[in-house]
Amino acid sequence: MNYKMIGRIQALVLFGEALFMLPALLICFYDRDWHTARAFAWSALLIVAVATVMYLLCRKAPRGFYEKEGFISVGLIWIVMSLLGCVPFVLSGAIPRFIDAFFEIVSGFTTTGASIVPNVEALPRGVLYWRSFSHWVGGMGVLVFLLAIAPVFGRRNGYTMHIMRAESPGPSVGKLVPRVRQTAAILYGIYIALTALNLLFLLMGGMPLFDAVCTAFGTAGTGGFSVKNNSIAGYSPYIQNVCTVFMFLFGTNFTCYFLVIRRQWKAAVTDEELRLYAGLAVVSIATITINLRTVYPAISEALRHAAFQVSSVMTTTGFATADFDRWPGLSKTILLTLMLVGACAGSTGGGMKCIRLLLLLKNLRRNVKMVCSPQRVQNVRVNRKTITEKTLDNTNAYLAAYVLILLLSILVISVDEMGITTNISAVIACFNNIGPGLEMVGPAGNYAAFSPLSKLVLIMDMLAGRLEIFPILVLFSQATWRRR
Amino acid sequence: MNYKMIGRIQALVLFGEALFMLPALLICFYDRDWHTARAFAWSALLIVAVATVMYLLCRKAPRGFYEKEGFISVGLIWIVMSLLGCVPFVLSGAIPRFIDAFFEIVSGFTTTGASIVPNVEALPRGVLYWRSFSHWVGGMGVLVFLLAIAPVFGRRNGYTMHIMRAESPGPSVGKLVPRVRQTAAILYGIYIALTALNLLFLLMGGMPLFDAVCTAFGTAGTGGFSVKNNSIAGYSPYIQNVCTVFMFLFGTNFTCYFLVIRRQWKAAVTDEELRLYAGLAVVSIATITINLRTVYPAISEALRHAAFQVSSVMTTTGFATADFDRWPGLSKTILLTLMLVGACAGSTGGGMKCIRLLLLLKNLRRNVKMVCSPQRVQNVRVNRKTITEKTLDNTNAYLAAYVLILLLSILVISVDEMGITTNISAVIACFNNIGPGLEMVGPAGNYAAFSPLSKLVLIMDMLAGRLEIFPILVLFSQATWRRR
Repeated sequence: MNYKMIGRIQALVLFGEALFMLPALLICFYDRDWHTARAFAWSALLIVAVATVMYLLCRKAPRGFYEKEGFISVGLIWIVMSLLGCVPFVLSGAIPRFIDAFFEIVSGFTTTGASIVPNVEALPRGVLYWRSFSHWVGGMGVLVFLLAIAPVFGRRNGYTMHIMRAESPGPSVGKLVPRVRQTAAILYGIYIALTALNLLFLLMGGMPLFDAVCTAFGTAGTGGFSVKNNSIAGYSPYIQNVCTVFMFLFGTNFTCYFLVIRRQWKAAVTDEELRLYAGLAVVSIATITINLRTVYPAISEALRHAAFQVSSVMTTTGFATADFDRWPGLSKTILLTLMLVGACAGSTGGGMKCIRLLLLLKNLRRNVKMVCSPQRVQNVRVNRKTITEKTLDNTNAYLAAYVLILLLSILVISVDEMGITTNISAVIACFNNIGPGLEMVGPAGNYAAFSPLSKLVLIMDMLAGRLEIFPILVLFSQATWRRR
Repeated sequence: MNYKMIGRIQALVLFGEALFMLPALLICFYDRDWHTARAFAWSALLIVAVATVMYLLCRKAPRGFYEKEGFISVGLIWIVMSLLGCVPFVLSGAIPRFIDAFFEIVSGFTTTGASIVPNVEALPRGVLYWRSFSHWVGGMGVLVFLLAIAPVFGRRNGYTMHIMRAESPGPSVGKLVPRVRQTAAILYGIYIALTALNLLFLLMGGMPLFDAVCTAFGTAGTGGFSVKNNSIAGYSPYIQNVCTVFMFLFGTNFTCYFLVIRRQWKAAVTDEELRLYAGLAVVSIATITINLRTVYPAISEALRHAAFQVSSVMTTTGFATADFDRWPGLSKTILLTLMLVGACAGSTGGGMKCIRLLLLLKNLRRNVKMVCSPQRVQNVRVNRKTITEKTLDNTNAYLAAYVLILLLSILVISVDEMGITTNISAVIACFNNIGPGLEMVGPAGNYAAFSPLSKLVLIMDMLAGRLEIFPILVLFSQATWRRR
């Protein structure tokens, strides 16, 4: 195990985290909120101190950095940067209890958007900014960001691939261009451009600058933290529709945008995952709109709310314009199912991802076909490319891990006696990085009432969900740490 | 496609079904219930007529009977015998609506035990007997029974294997002895002996003969239909404990009993699936007993109810001694989780089966290990035997199909607006052949209020659950019926 290289990566990311706190500090200065400013300054100093010690300890890292090290680096840094990232919440007194602050920042970085804060509007703006910014940086991945800007490994392309694979969502990572570093840079380029466009559209709707920045961060990372207690419900229909469209765009596989930039329109539009994603969205919106026709006075209003909530839940953002917990059972069940499916691989969205649903369906069809013609070799193909058996096996193992973690988490938090629908939806909402669930944790509720143990379980769910389970499993697996 | 052979198998099973109605007829005679007797007589005649026509049409069946034909025969006969098996319910007026009668008999044959009858005690005894007997014959499989007694295929061993594989529960069928027919006979021998033993123990507790026979059928098939409205709650603690033990025994892989008969004690006791099954039961009973310590006056009473309900739910029987819908959330969630796991392969129990859980866990561990040492070939082994990749792939496909069917079914029945916990637990309880769920379909409720569409969905769930999905998928798959 290359401990020193792992340590060096941790140190570099932490330096980045301290830097990212500076805008929050500036906002505090602007607001003359010296108390919160001090909290951020001390936190940044603490992080720099930890990072410096780590960096000095891990200066001379040996060569050799494999898949295992990639998974461990990623799993570890997400925990470490969350542990340190929540310090400003505690020091500023915005969220005094450590477990709550930890929950909130993990919810931020993992782009979940589940909150334990009942009154968001009472928080200082510096804290609000930091909460929303954590979505933005967590959405595309901190290590991918690091790869894009810093030559962590020098010229060793293979090394960076292990990081990319562990942190990026989806069953297999597509390098857009041969060099991983350049791929990371292109992805972040698209990400920044889309975020800027989103911000522009929000400002054009008359949204205040601070609200627009935070909302754009929340949309881009498909996070869901808002600066208002009623999420997006208080803004104009125009702004709600802008959010609907941009949430959907950020849930799309970024490879499609790259194809569009390269003018390979046909490849982008015929992408099987994109079609499944769009198809599911359209069918769900139509069904929910019909189901809601008696709930809202006009069908256009039902359509707007249905489209917003479907886009929000499917991309695992978690913004809300309506308390969908009060919607009819069919609509609620559709939303709950969409939570499980999630967005596209290679996007900032969470969940199981449409591509995995596609692979599972195709593998299932293959198994049925094999009964009819047992001799014939049947391959699973997506976008005319044969999927390797290893990827299929991995997708299957992912589903098994997914179901097991879901069940175990529900079991543990059921000790709190919050009701079955609350428990199931809380775990689904955290594990798939959505945010709001149903009943007690619905759009009008929050996660404050859970016990510290349940919060810890939900924190692990958020991390496992964002990192797609395996980095966390590898980190906590006996086999990893056994000496040979 | 060998239509004629498939037709001949259907005819033979139907002849058997008509024969099986005779005891119900005799009970009606004994009770001087001529109205119900007429219903059974006409039903039996109808079935014989249908079977005769089928048999005559399919006399000269060509050779060639493959996996596909096996799956289709099994999928089809379960639907056909249910369609005809519910006729006495309708004719006798016990359950006047056809969809309800169909639901009830499918629930019987699939050993689910979900009922739409609010007042069971008002039913004629002939009907009660037929309901309970359907559990017994469905538990081990009608076609396996046919294989045990009739030379359907003459000496063609391979042919019968296809039937056995499609109807028996578990990811891979273990032939106990080289000849399939003999294997089927041994299995039914063990089954009959255990049922007789169960009956004896019940009679020793002073249970009336009719009640004891029906309860033994319900226990043996892990079905759950009872002749009392409050299931087993009204009987003595001794009888409840007898049921607890025998439910557990019927949920055990019958191969273990065969090993015991052969005096291979060690192999039986060290069976990995058996250990997982027993381990899960013990841990669940202990946890629920602790969780219930304040609900019941004495800890011994809590233990008895916990053991009974765990055994009932885990083996997918569905008897009840207590309304567990009123238990604390943790206990309810444990029971809901056990519903998904189910009993052992090669038993009469339903659910996903412990062996599949074991395979999924081992495959997951393999995937984690492969991150650490990507080069090493890792095999999944159970009971020191390597599991083929085909079985693993099939188990994975099973899980995918399982989750998808679960979600789709919940979606469709949510149109009825019965509440999320009711819907989720109803689908889980039907799909895993358990019977009672939570809330509206809890031990004190029933399935009568669902719409005909929802009932049809739940019927398909019960069939798919009992036949382990693939026969039903193959039967309704386009690929099966496409002409080459």
